[in-house]
Amino acid sequence: MAAIKVHGSPLSTATRRVLACLYEKEIDFQFVPINMATGEHKSDNFLALNPFGQVPAFEDGDLTLFESRASANYVAHEFADKGTQLLISGSNKEVAVLELWKEVEAHQFNTPSSKVVWELFFKPFLGMATDAAVVEENETQLGKVLDVYETRLTQSKYLASDNFTLADLYHLPNIQYLLATPAKKLFESRPHVDAWVKEITARPAWSKVLAMMNQ
Amino acid sequence: MAAIKVHGSPLSTATRRVLACLYEKEIDFQFVPINMATGEHKSDNFLALNPFGQVPAFEDGDLTLFESRASANYVAHEFADKGTQLLISGSNKEVAVLELWKEVEAHQFNTPSSKVVWELFFKPFLGMATDAAVVEENETQLGKVLDVYETRLTQSKYLASDNFTLADLYHLPNIQYLLATPAKKLFESRPHVDAWVKEITARPAWSKVLAMMNQ
Ligand SMILES: N[C@@H](CCC(=O)N[C@@H](CS)C(=O)NCC(=O)O)C(=O)O
Ligand SMILES: N[C@@H](CCC(=O)N[C@@H](CS)C(=O)NCC(=O)O)C(=O)O
Repeated sequence: MAAIKVHGSPLSTATRRVLACLYEKEIDFQFVPINMATGEHKSDNFLALNPFGQVPAFEDGDLTLFESRASANYVAHEFADKGTQLLISGSNKEVAVLELWKEVEAHQFNTPSSKVVWELFFKPFLGMATDAAVVEENETQLGKVLDVYETRLTQSKYLASDNFTLADLYHLPNIQYLLATPAKKLFESRPHVDAWVKEITARPAWSKVLAMMNQ
Repeated sequence: MAAIKVHGSPLSTATRRVLACLYEKEIDFQFVPINMATGEHKSDNFLALNPFGQVPAFEDGDLTLFESRASANYVAHEFADKGTQLLISGSNKEVAVLELWKEVEAHQFNTPSSKVVWELFFKPFLGMATDAAVVEENETQLGKVLDVYETRLTQSKYLASDNFTLADLYHLPNIQYLLATPAKKLFESRPHVDAWVKEITARPAWSKVLAMMNQ
């Protein structure tokens, strides 16, 4: 049995964030599907893993984590010498640049992109009506964030450096769903963002995450 | 001239997060007030420091950062041997617990608490009308988060360990404003949360942050 377990759903953005990291690091793990349709994520068994009742939950032996970014960050540090190097090593000043772009994803990109994904992807998928006002407000907000990215990506190939890091990886789940909606225009209209999106969504590790849908 | 500069407003929650960290670490710094009333945070000068046009911005010599948590995190690492030890040192598994509770603040606590602060503190302060439905929805959400904290704080004195860390510090700015609103009942009704709130808001470093309002 693998020491590492990810409990989650292959459609969940947060679950995919952790899976992407494990595939980049080429780490064996066991995927434990959680049936969200029957509310398994609110069961006592699952709440013992994640008291917030959300997927994913993560285990490595006696360590239990939740919050997708905390789990991915642990994997990147614990297996620093395996697979893709997702961190920046160096002085505190160099590391701070990675931390900065991780924070930008969390506090600038995540909210508007998650809202657009919900309105334009998941609501139609679930037979619910999209709220056009919410889409417009959040597309505007997301556009402003991507304007900053467009400038940033003229300075370095990826957000935190010329190498792919956790900061880029954290964006993949929401970007992938946005690409299946009209909001993809927000990427296509910004050449550096567009190239970055094409590059990071083409990574073999990410293809493995997407392939889990069809298992 | 101090190598470290914080550009911001003493009333801004995000600015206060960085100031609290600097005072905990006993680091000299220069505070550069940004006049948000005149839109100074959207001026070209300020946008060169933070392209998102938000306070705070942070400088240490040739390093420029924004995002309050990225700035505080840098300070905690760069000055690890000064003032309060805000990090957990040890194995990756031990460090992961701190990272987990920092993520919980960012992705569970921050949104509902910021919304309640806006509705119950800043809107009345600015002469705007509070939206009761928004308050109710976010107080309910915040209450659920604090239920998890109540259980967690029976296991350790602070969120990440028995010592005060960045994970606790990140909560201070929103907690302080909530204490000045009826939403303080959410803390008072949970004994461990109540004790934790009293403890962390009584820290001398935090008093120094609050005193900056009166300068
Ligand atoms: N901040 C959390 C978010 C987790 C999250 O929102 N998971 C969703 C699926 S992507 C979920 O479990 N939703 C069900 C619920 O919140 O009840 C993380 O990054 O892990
Ligand atoms: N995630 C950012 C948030 C910064 C932020 O929202 N700052 C507010 C003041 S607390 C601001 O500048 N608001 C003005 C604006 O967004 O235009 C951080 O933590 O630094």
